[in-house]
Amino acid sequence: MSNKNILIVSTSTVHGKGYLEYIQDEISNFFEGCKNILFIPFARPGGITWDEYTAIARKKFEELDFNVKGIHEFNNTEDALAYADGFFTGGGNTFELVDQLYKHELLNPLKAEIENGKPYMGTSAGSNITGVSVKTTNDMPIVYPPSFDALGLVPFNINPHYLDPDPNSKHMGETRETRIKEFHHYNSETVVGLREGSWLRVSGNYIELRGPHTARIFDAGQEPREVEPGNVGFLLQ
Amino acid sequence: MSNKNILIVSTSTVHGKGYLEYIQDEISNFFEGCKNILFIPFARPGGITWDEYTAIARKKFEELDFNVKGIHEFNNTEDALAYADGFFTGGGNTFELVDQLYKHELLNPLKAEIENGKPYMGTSAGSNITGVSVKTTNDMPIVYPPSFDALGLVPFNINPHYLDPDPNSKHMGETRETRIKEFHHYNSETVVGLREGSWLRVSGNYIELRGPHTARIFDAGQEPREVEPGNVGFLLQ
Repeated sequence: MSNKNILIVSTSTVHGKGYLEYIQDEISNFFEGCKNILFIPFARPGGITWDEYTAIARKKFEELDFNVKGIHEFNNTEDALAYADGFFTGGGNTFELVDQLYKHELLNPLKAEIENGKPYMGTSAGSNITGVSVKTTNDMPIVYPPSFDALGLVPFNINPHYLDPDPNSKHMGETRETRIKEFHHYNSETVVGLREGSWLRVSGNYIELRGPHTARIFDAGQEPREVEPGNVGFLLQ
Repeated sequence: MSNKNILIVSTSTVHGKGYLEYIQDEISNFFEGCKNILFIPFARPGGITWDEYTAIARKKFEELDFNVKGIHEFNNTEDALAYADGFFTGGGNTFELVDQLYKHELLNPLKAEIENGKPYMGTSAGSNITGVSVKTTNDMPIVYPPSFDALGLVPFNINPHYLDPDPNSKHMGETRETRIKEFHHYNSETVVGLREGSWLRVSGNYIELRGPHTARIFDAGQEPREVEPGNVGFLLQ
Protein backbone atom coordinates (compact mmCIF):
# COMPACT_ATOMS: atom_id res chain seq x y z
CA MET A 1 0.00 0.00 0.00
CA SER A 2 1.11 3.48 -0.83
CA ASN A 3 1.03 6.27 1.73
CA LYS A 4 1.04 9.03 -0.83
CA ASN A 5 -0.92 12.19 -0.12
CA ILE A 6 -1.00 14.51 -3.09
CA LEU A 7 -3.07 17.52 -4.08
CA ILE A 8 -2.91 18.07 -7.83
CA VAL A 9 -4.39 21.50 -8.46
CA SER A 10 -5.18 23.01 -11.87
CA THR A 11 -4.55 26.64 -10.93
CA SER A 12 -3.43 28.64 -7.90
CA THR A 13 -5.95 31.34 -8.61
CA VAL A 14 -9.44 31.45 -10.06
CA HIS A 15 -10.84 34.56 -11.69
CA GLY A 16 -11.95 37.19 -9.17
CA LYS A 17 -10.35 35.61 -6.10
CA GLY A 18 -7.02 35.97 -4.30
CA TYR A 19 -4.03 33.64 -4.47
CA LEU A 20 -5.12 30.13 -3.33
CA GLU A 21 -8.24 31.65 -1.76
CA TYR A 22 -10.77 29.32 -3.41
CA ILE A 23 -8.93 26.24 -2.16
CA GLN A 24 -7.75 27.38 1.26
CA ASP A 25 -10.06 25.10 3.27
CA GLU A 26 -8.79 22.11 1.36
CA ILE A 27 -5.19 23.22 1.96
CA SER A 28 -5.80 23.48 5.72
CA ASN A 29 -7.34 20.04 5.74
CA PHE A 30 -4.73 18.46 3.47
CA PHE A 31 -1.73 19.67 5.46
CA GLU A 32 -3.37 18.99 8.86
CA GLY A 33 -0.71 18.04 11.38
CA CYS A 34 2.05 19.71 9.36
CA LYS A 35 3.89 22.70 10.75
CA ASN A 36 6.59 23.46 8.19
CA ILE A 37 5.92 23.60 4.45
CA LEU A 38 8.85 23.56 2.06
CA PHE A 39 8.08 25.75 -0.95
CA ILE A 40 9.65 25.07 -4.34
CA PRO A 41 9.69 28.40 -6.22
CA PHE A 42 11.60 27.28 -9.31
CA ALA A 43 8.79 27.84 -11.84
CA ARG A 44 9.12 31.64 -11.38
CA PRO A 45 5.84 32.92 -12.88
CA GLY A 46 6.48 36.10 -14.85
CA GLY A 47 10.18 35.67 -14.11
CA ILE A 48 9.93 36.78 -10.47
CA THR A 49 12.77 35.74 -8.17
CA TRP A 50 12.75 32.70 -5.88
CA ASP A 51 12.58 35.07 -2.89
CA GLU A 52 9.68 37.06 -4.31
CA TYR A 53 7.75 33.93 -5.13
CA THR A 54 8.38 32.37 -1.73
CA ALA A 55 7.13 35.55 -0.05
CA ILE A 56 3.80 35.21 -1.92
CA ALA A 57 3.37 31.59 -0.86
CA ARG A 58 4.49 32.32 2.70
CA LYS A 59 1.95 35.12 3.11
CA LYS A 60 -0.95 32.84 2.20
CA PHE A 61 0.26 29.81 4.14
CA GLU A 62 0.96 31.87 7.26
CA GLU A 63 -2.67 33.00 7.16
CA LEU A 64 -3.50 29.29 7.37
CA ASP A 65 -1.06 28.82 10.31
CA PHE A 66 1.77 27.07 8.50
CA ASN A 67 5.42 28.08 8.34
CA VAL A 68 6.98 28.32 4.89
CA LYS A 69 10.58 28.31 3.74
CA GLY A 70 11.83 28.30 0.19
CA ILE A 71 14.02 25.37 -0.75
CA HIS A 72 16.71 27.81 -1.89
CA GLU A 73 17.02 29.14 1.68
CA PHE A 74 18.76 25.92 2.76
CA ASN A 75 22.41 25.05 2.26
CA ASN A 76 21.66 21.55 1.05
CA THR A 77 18.84 19.22 0.09
CA GLU A 78 19.11 17.14 3.26
CA ASP A 79 18.47 20.15 5.51
CA ALA A 80 15.59 21.28 3.31
CA LEU A 81 13.92 17.88 3.35
CA ALA A 82 14.46 17.55 7.10
CA TYR A 83 12.64 20.86 7.63
CA ALA A 84 9.66 19.82 5.53
CA ASP A 85 6.53 18.33 7.02
CA GLY A 86 5.00 18.84 3.57
CA PHE A 87 5.77 20.30 0.15
CA PHE A 88 4.22 22.91 -2.10
CA THR A 89 5.37 23.62 -5.64
CA GLY A 90 3.87 26.72 -7.23
CA GLY A 91 3.06 27.32 -10.88
CA GLY A 92 4.92 29.25 -13.55
CA ASN A 93 7.02 27.78 -16.31
CA THR A 94 7.16 23.99 -16.26
CA PHE A 95 10.38 23.76 -18.31
CA GLU A 96 12.28 26.03 -15.96
CA LEU A 97 10.86 24.16 -12.97
CA VAL A 98 11.95 20.79 -14.34
CA ASP A 99 15.35 22.11 -15.35
CA GLN A 100 16.00 23.35 -11.81
CA LEU A 101 14.75 20.10 -10.26
CA TYR A 102 17.33 18.24 -12.35
CA LYS A 103 20.09 20.78 -11.64
CA HIS A 104 19.45 20.43 -7.91
CA GLU A 105 19.13 16.62 -8.22
CA LEU A 106 15.81 16.85 -6.42
CA LEU A 107 13.51 14.51 -8.31
CA ASN A 108 14.49 11.25 -6.59
CA PRO A 109 14.84 12.55 -3.01
CA LEU A 110 11.57 14.48 -3.31
CA LYS A 111 9.77 11.47 -4.72
CA ALA A 112 11.06 9.28 -1.89
CA GLU A 113 9.80 11.70 0.75
CA ILE A 114 6.36 11.85 -0.85
CA GLU A 115 6.14 8.09 -1.23
CA ASN A 116 6.98 7.82 2.46
CA GLY A 117 3.92 9.90 3.26
CA LYS A 118 4.86 13.58 3.42
CA PRO A 119 2.04 15.48 1.69
CA TYR A 120 2.76 17.23 -1.59
CA MET A 121 0.65 19.94 -3.19
CA GLY A 122 1.26 21.38 -6.63
CA THR A 123 -0.52 24.02 -8.65
CA SER A 124 -0.28 24.25 -12.44
CA ALA A 125 3.41 23.60 -13.25
CA GLY A 126 3.71 22.09 -9.78
CA SER A 127 0.91 19.71 -10.77
CA ASN A 128 2.44 18.83 -14.12
CA ILE A 129 5.47 17.37 -12.37
CA THR A 130 3.40 14.86 -10.38
CA GLY A 131 2.68 13.00 -13.64
CA VAL A 132 4.77 10.58 -15.65
CA SER A 133 6.18 13.38 -17.79
CA VAL A 134 5.66 17.07 -18.47
CA LYS A 135 4.83 16.39 -22.12
CA THR A 136 1.29 17.69 -21.62
CA THR A 137 2.20 21.09 -20.21
CA ASN A 138 0.76 24.19 -21.86
CA ASP A 139 3.91 26.18 -21.22
CA MET A 140 6.36 27.67 -23.66
CA PRO A 141 9.66 25.73 -23.80
CA ILE A 142 11.82 28.70 -22.84
CA VAL A 143 14.59 26.55 -21.38
CA TYR A 144 15.83 23.08 -22.40
CA PRO A 145 15.70 20.63 -19.48
CA PRO A 146 17.74 17.39 -19.46
CA SER A 147 14.56 15.33 -19.71
CA PHE A 148 10.77 15.65 -19.82
CA ASP A 149 10.43 12.85 -17.24
CA ALA A 150 8.71 14.03 -14.07
CA LEU A 151 8.11 12.67 -10.56
CA GLY A 152 5.77 9.92 -11.72
CA LEU A 153 3.81 9.99 -8.45
CA VAL A 154 0.70 9.08 -10.41
CA PRO A 155 0.62 6.81 -13.48
CA PHE A 156 -0.91 9.42 -15.77
CA ASN A 157 -0.21 12.94 -17.04
CA ILE A 158 -1.83 16.22 -16.10
CA ASN A 159 -3.06 18.97 -18.36
CA PRO A 160 -3.81 21.88 -16.04
CA HIS A 161 -5.85 24.95 -17.03
CA TYR A 162 -7.79 22.62 -19.30
CA LEU A 163 -9.79 24.63 -21.85
CA ASP A 164 -12.68 23.45 -23.98
CA PRO A 165 -12.58 24.36 -27.66
CA ASP A 166 -14.29 27.68 -28.39
CA PRO A 167 -16.91 26.94 -31.07
CA ASN A 168 -16.84 30.58 -32.19
CA SER A 169 -13.08 30.85 -32.54
CA LYS A 170 -11.61 31.70 -35.93
CA HIS A 171 -8.10 31.01 -34.66
CA MET A 172 -6.37 28.17 -36.50
CA GLY A 173 -3.94 27.14 -33.75
CA GLU A 174 -4.60 23.67 -32.34
CA THR A 175 -7.23 23.24 -29.63
CA ARG A 176 -6.16 21.66 -26.36
CA GLU A 177 -7.98 18.46 -27.28
CA THR A 178 -6.14 18.26 -30.62
CA ARG A 179 -2.82 18.69 -28.83
CA ILE A 180 -3.56 15.91 -26.35
CA LYS A 181 -4.66 13.61 -29.17
CA GLU A 182 -1.33 14.33 -30.89
CA PHE A 183 0.40 13.42 -27.61
CA HIS A 184 -1.20 9.98 -27.87
CA HIS A 185 0.38 9.35 -31.26
CA TYR A 186 3.71 9.16 -29.42
CA ASN A 187 2.80 8.30 -25.82
CA SER A 188 0.39 5.96 -24.06
CA GLU A 189 -0.27 7.63 -20.69
CA THR A 190 -3.78 8.75 -19.83
CA VAL A 191 -4.08 12.54 -19.59
CA VAL A 192 -6.31 14.26 -17.05
CA GLY A 193 -7.59 17.61 -18.31
CA LEU A 194 -8.17 19.58 -15.10
CA ARG A 195 -10.29 22.69 -15.51
CA GLU A 196 -9.45 25.78 -13.46
CA GLY A 197 -11.01 25.39 -10.00
CA SER A 198 -10.67 21.58 -10.02
CA TRP A 199 -8.14 19.38 -8.32
CA LEU A 200 -7.33 15.75 -7.60
CA ARG A 201 -6.86 14.56 -4.07
CA VAL A 202 -4.73 11.46 -3.95
CA SER A 203 -4.61 9.32 -0.79
CA GLY A 204 -2.67 6.18 -1.48
CA ASN A 205 -4.51 4.46 -4.30
CA TYR A 206 -7.63 6.55 -3.77
CA ILE A 207 -7.95 9.42 -6.23
CA GLU A 208 -10.89 11.81 -6.03
CA LEU A 209 -11.82 14.66 -8.37
CA ARG A 210 -12.79 17.74 -6.35
CA GLY A 211 -13.98 21.25 -7.17
CA PRO A 212 -16.99 22.45 -9.18
CA HIS A 213 -16.13 21.08 -12.64
CA THR A 214 -16.03 17.78 -14.44
CA ALA A 215 -12.61 16.68 -15.68
CA ARG A 216 -11.88 15.49 -19.20
CA ILE A 217 -10.00 12.19 -19.35
CA PHE A 218 -8.04 11.23 -22.43
CA ASP A 219 -7.09 7.57 -22.69
CA ALA A 220 -4.86 6.63 -25.62
CA GLY A 221 -6.85 5.42 -28.58
CA GLN A 222 -10.24 6.13 -27.02
CA GLU A 223 -12.80 8.90 -27.09
CA PRO A 224 -12.35 11.41 -24.25
CA ARG A 225 -14.66 10.99 -21.26
CA GLU A 226 -15.98 13.43 -18.66
CA VAL A 227 -15.89 12.47 -15.00
CA GLU A 228 -17.94 14.16 -12.29
CA PRO A 229 -16.61 15.80 -9.12
CA GLY A 230 -16.60 13.30 -6.30
CA ASN A 231 -15.78 10.53 -8.71
CA VAL A 232 -13.36 8.03 -7.22
CA GLY A 233 -11.69 5.16 -8.95
CA PHE A 234 -11.74 6.62 -12.44
CA LEU A 235 -7.96 6.40 -12.40
CA LEU A 236 -6.98 3.45 -10.28
CA GLN A 237 -3.28 2.98 -9.80
CA MET B 1 26.00 39.12 -48.94
CA SER B 2 23.52 36.42 -48.22
CA ASN B 3 21.43 34.85 -50.96
CA LYS B 4 18.78 33.53 -48.61
CA ASN B 5 15.19 33.47 -49.81
CA ILE B 6 12.79 32.53 -47.04
CA LEU B 7 9.05 32.75 -46.56
CA ILE B 8 8.17 32.59 -42.87
CA VAL B 9 4.42 32.06 -42.69
CA SER B 10 2.29 32.18 -39.53
CA THR B 11 -0.32 29.64 -40.63
CA SER B 12 -1.04 27.41 -43.64
CA THR B 13 -4.73 28.16 -43.47
CA VAL B 14 -6.81 31.16 -42.49
CA HIS B 15 -10.37 30.82 -41.29
CA GLY B 16 -12.83 30.17 -44.13
CA LYS B 17 -10.27 29.42 -46.85
CA GLY B 18 -8.61 26.29 -48.17
CA TYR B 19 -5.12 25.02 -47.47
CA LEU B 20 -2.56 27.72 -48.48
CA GLU B 21 -5.27 29.42 -50.56
CA TYR B 22 -4.84 32.91 -49.10
CA ILE B 23 -1.11 32.92 -49.86
CA GLN B 24 -1.00 31.06 -53.18
CA ASP B 25 -0.03 34.07 -55.31
CA GLU B 26 2.92 34.72 -53.01
CA ILE B 27 3.94 31.05 -53.22
CA SER B 28 3.89 31.16 -57.03
CA ASN B 29 6.00 34.28 -57.01
CA PHE B 30 8.38 33.10 -54.29
CA PHE B 31 9.19 29.77 -55.97
CA GLU B 32 9.37 31.28 -59.47
CA GLY B 33 11.88 29.34 -61.57
CA CYS B 34 11.63 26.27 -59.33
CA LYS B 35 10.26 23.03 -60.68
CA ASN B 36 10.67 20.52 -57.84
CA ILE B 37 9.71 21.29 -54.26
CA LEU B 38 10.95 19.01 -51.49
CA PHE B 39 8.31 18.74 -48.78
CA ILE B 40 9.25 18.02 -45.17
CA PRO B 41 6.20 16.33 -43.54
CA PHE B 42 7.75 15.56 -40.15
CA ALA B 43 5.48 17.82 -38.06
CA ARG B 44 2.50 15.49 -38.76
CA PRO B 45 -0.48 17.70 -37.79
CA GLY B 46 -3.09 15.61 -36.01
CA GLY B 47 -0.70 12.67 -36.21
CA ILE B 48 -1.29 12.00 -39.92
CA THR B 49 1.37 9.98 -41.75
CA TRP B 50 4.22 11.44 -43.80
CA ASP B 51 2.53 10.12 -46.94
CA GLU B 52 -0.84 11.61 -46.08
CA TYR B 53 0.69 14.97 -45.29
CA THR B 54 2.77 15.00 -48.45
CA ALA B 55 -0.35 14.27 -50.50
CA ILE B 56 -2.02 17.38 -49.07
CA ALA B 57 0.94 19.60 -49.92
CA ARG B 58 1.36 17.99 -53.34
CA LYS B 59 -2.27 18.62 -54.29
CA LYS B 60 -1.95 22.34 -53.60
CA PHE B 61 1.50 22.80 -55.14
CA GLU B 62 0.52 20.88 -58.28
CA GLU B 63 -2.34 23.37 -58.76
CA LEU B 64 0.40 26.00 -58.81
CA ASP B 65 2.45 23.99 -61.34
CA PHE B 66 5.16 22.66 -59.05
CA ASN B 67 6.18 19.05 -58.50
CA VAL B 68 6.33 17.87 -54.88
CA LYS B 69 8.07 14.91 -53.27
CA GLY B 70 8.26 14.13 -49.59
CA ILE B 71 11.75 13.90 -48.17
CA HIS B 72 10.94 10.40 -46.87
CA GLU B 73 10.44 9.20 -50.45
CA PHE B 74 14.21 9.35 -51.05
CA ASN B 75 16.78 6.77 -50.04
CA ASN B 76 19.18 9.34 -48.66
CA THR B 77 19.56 13.02 -47.92
CA GLU B 78 21.88 13.68 -50.87
CA ASP B 79 19.30 12.47 -53.38
CA ALA B 80 16.56 14.45 -51.68
CA LEU B 81 18.56 17.67 -51.69
CA ALA B 82 19.62 17.11 -55.30
CA TYR B 83 15.94 16.84 -56.30
CA ALA B 84 14.99 20.06 -54.54
CA ASP B 85 14.81 23.40 -56.31
CA GLY B 86 13.14 24.67 -53.16
CA PHE B 87 11.85 23.49 -49.78
CA PHE B 88 8.55 23.59 -47.95
CA THR B 89 8.07 22.49 -44.33
CA GLY B 90 4.48 22.24 -43.18
CA GLY B 91 3.07 22.87 -39.72
CA GLY B 92 2.07 20.48 -36.99
CA ASN B 93 4.02 19.67 -33.87
CA THR B 94 7.30 21.56 -33.63
CA PHE B 95 8.90 19.12 -31.17
CA GLU B 96 8.28 16.13 -33.41
CA LEU B 97 9.53 18.11 -36.42
CA VAL B 98 12.74 19.09 -34.67
CA ASP B 99 13.27 15.59 -33.32
CA GLN B 100 13.02 14.12 -36.82
CA LEU B 101 15.33 16.79 -38.29
CA TYR B 102 17.96 15.75 -35.74
CA LYS B 103 17.36 12.03 -36.26
CA HIS B 104 17.80 12.48 -40.01
CA GLU B 105 20.81 14.79 -39.47
CA LEU B 106 19.13 17.33 -41.70
CA LEU B 107 19.68 20.65 -39.97
CA ASN B 108 23.15 21.44 -41.29
CA PRO B 109 22.69 20.19 -44.89
CA LEU B 110 19.34 21.95 -45.17
CA LYS B 111 20.76 25.18 -43.79
CA ALA B 112 23.65 25.04 -46.26
CA GLU B 113 21.29 24.61 -49.22
CA ILE B 114 19.17 27.56 -48.10
CA GLU B 115 22.18 29.78 -47.49
CA ASN B 116 23.33 28.95 -51.00
CA GLY B 117 20.07 30.34 -52.34
CA LYS B 118 17.48 27.58 -52.62
CA PRO B 119 14.19 29.09 -51.44
CA TYR B 120 12.64 27.79 -48.22
CA MET B 121 9.06 28.25 -47.12
CA GLY B 122 7.71 27.23 -43.72
CA THR B 123 4.28 27.48 -42.17
CA SER B 124 3.71 27.43 -38.40
CA ALA B 125 6.09 24.72 -37.06
CA GLY B 126 7.97 25.02 -40.37
CA SER B 127 8.40 28.72 -39.57
CA ASN B 128 9.49 28.14 -36.00
CA ILE B 129 12.54 26.23 -37.23
CA THR B 130 13.83 29.17 -39.29
CA GLY B 131 14.60 30.99 -36.02
CA VAL B 132 17.46 30.65 -33.58
CA SER B 133 15.55 28.15 -31.48
CA VAL B 134 12.08 26.68 -31.15
CA LYS B 135 11.75 28.00 -27.60
CA THR B 136 8.87 30.26 -28.65
CA THR B 137 6.66 27.58 -30.18
CA ASN B 138 3.08 27.27 -28.96
CA ASP B 139 3.11 23.50 -29.31
CA MET B 140 2.82 20.82 -26.69
CA PRO B 141 6.16 19.08 -25.98
CA ILE B 142 4.88 15.60 -26.87
CA VAL B 143 8.35 14.31 -27.79
CA TYR B 144 11.78 15.19 -26.35
CA PRO B 145 14.16 16.38 -29.07
CA PRO B 146 17.96 16.36 -28.59
CA SER B 147 18.03 20.17 -28.62
CA PHE B 148 15.77 23.21 -29.02
CA ASP B 149 18.29 24.80 -31.43
CA ALA B 150 16.82 25.39 -34.87
CA LEU B 151 18.10 26.36 -38.33
CA GLY B 152 19.05 29.88 -37.30
CA LEU B 153 18.39 31.25 -40.78
CA VAL B 154 17.29 34.50 -39.18
CA PRO B 155 18.77 36.00 -36.00
CA PHE B 156 15.46 36.07 -34.12
CA ASN B 157 12.70 33.70 -33.03
CA ILE B 158 9.21 33.26 -34.42
CA ASN B 159 5.96 33.01 -32.55
CA PRO B 160 3.40 31.92 -35.15
CA HIS B 161 -0.38 32.09 -34.66
CA TYR B 162 0.28 35.14 -32.49
CA LEU B 163 -2.78 35.94 -30.38
CA ASP B 164 -3.55 39.17 -28.57
CA PRO B 165 -4.75 38.87 -24.98
CA ASP B 166 -8.54 38.61 -24.73
CA PRO B 167 -9.63 41.42 -22.37
CA ASN B 168 -12.81 39.49 -21.52
CA SER B 169 -11.12 36.21 -20.69
CA LYS B 170 -11.51 34.78 -17.21
CA HIS B 171 -8.96 32.06 -17.95
CA MET B 172 -5.91 32.27 -15.69
CA GLY B 173 -3.39 30.56 -18.02
CA GLU B 174 -0.64 32.86 -19.24
CA THR B 175 -1.28 35.10 -22.25
CA ARG B 176 1.02 34.79 -25.23
CA GLU B 177 2.67 38.09 -24.33
CA THR B 178 3.36 36.89 -20.77
CA ARG B 179 4.96 33.72 -22.14
CA ILE B 180 7.23 35.65 -24.48
CA LYS B 181 8.24 38.00 -21.68
CA GLU B 182 9.15 34.93 -19.58
CA PHE B 183 11.24 33.71 -22.53
CA HIS B 184 13.25 36.91 -22.23
CA HIS B 185 14.19 36.16 -18.64
CA TYR B 186 16.32 33.32 -20.00
CA ASN B 187 17.03 34.28 -23.63
CA SER B 188 17.99 37.43 -25.51
CA GLU B 189 16.66 36.85 -29.04
CA THR B 190 14.02 39.16 -30.45
CA VAL B 191 10.69 37.38 -30.98
CA VAL B 192 8.42 38.18 -33.93
CA GLY B 193 4.76 37.56 -33.09
CA LEU B 194 3.21 36.77 -36.49
CA ARG B 195 -0.58 36.93 -36.58
CA GLU B 196 -2.47 34.42 -38.73
CA GLY B 197 -2.50 35.70 -42.32
CA SER B 198 0.88 37.43 -41.97
CA TRP B 199 4.28 36.33 -43.18
CA LEU B 200 7.86 37.53 -43.50
CA ARG B 201 9.56 37.51 -46.87
CA VAL B 202 13.32 37.37 -46.46
CA SER B 203 15.59 38.17 -49.42
CA GLY B 204 19.18 38.26 -48.25
CA ASN B 205 19.29 40.93 -45.58
CA TYR B 206 15.97 42.40 -46.66
CA ILE B 207 13.05 41.34 -44.47
CA GLU B 208 9.54 42.52 -45.23
CA LEU B 209 6.35 41.95 -43.27
CA ARG B 210 3.51 40.99 -45.60
CA GLY B 211 -0.18 40.22 -45.21
CA PRO B 212 -3.03 42.25 -43.70
CA HIS B 213 -1.88 42.50 -40.07
CA THR B 214 0.72 44.31 -38.04
CA ALA B 215 3.27 42.10 -36.29
CA ARG B 216 4.20 42.37 -32.62
CA ILE B 217 7.93 42.54 -31.98
CA PHE B 218 9.37 41.62 -28.61
CA ASP B 219 12.92 42.80 -27.97
CA ALA B 220 14.49 41.62 -24.73
CA GLY B 221 14.08 44.15 -21.95
CA GLN B 222 11.94 46.53 -24.00
CA GLU B 223 8.26 47.22 -24.46
CA PRO B 224 6.74 45.31 -27.40
CA ARG B 225 6.27 47.25 -30.62
CA GLU B 226 3.87 46.89 -33.53
CA VAL B 227 5.20 47.06 -37.08
CA GLU B 228 3.08 47.68 -40.14
CA PRO B 229 2.78 45.46 -43.22
CA GLY B 230 5.28 46.57 -45.84
CA ASN B 231 7.74 47.51 -43.15
CA VAL B 232 11.30 46.69 -44.11
CA GLY B 233 14.38 46.93 -41.98
CA PHE B 234 12.66 46.48 -38.66
CA LEU B 235 14.80 43.40 -38.15
CA LEU B 236 18.10 43.98 -39.87
CA GLN B 237 20.49 41.07 -39.82
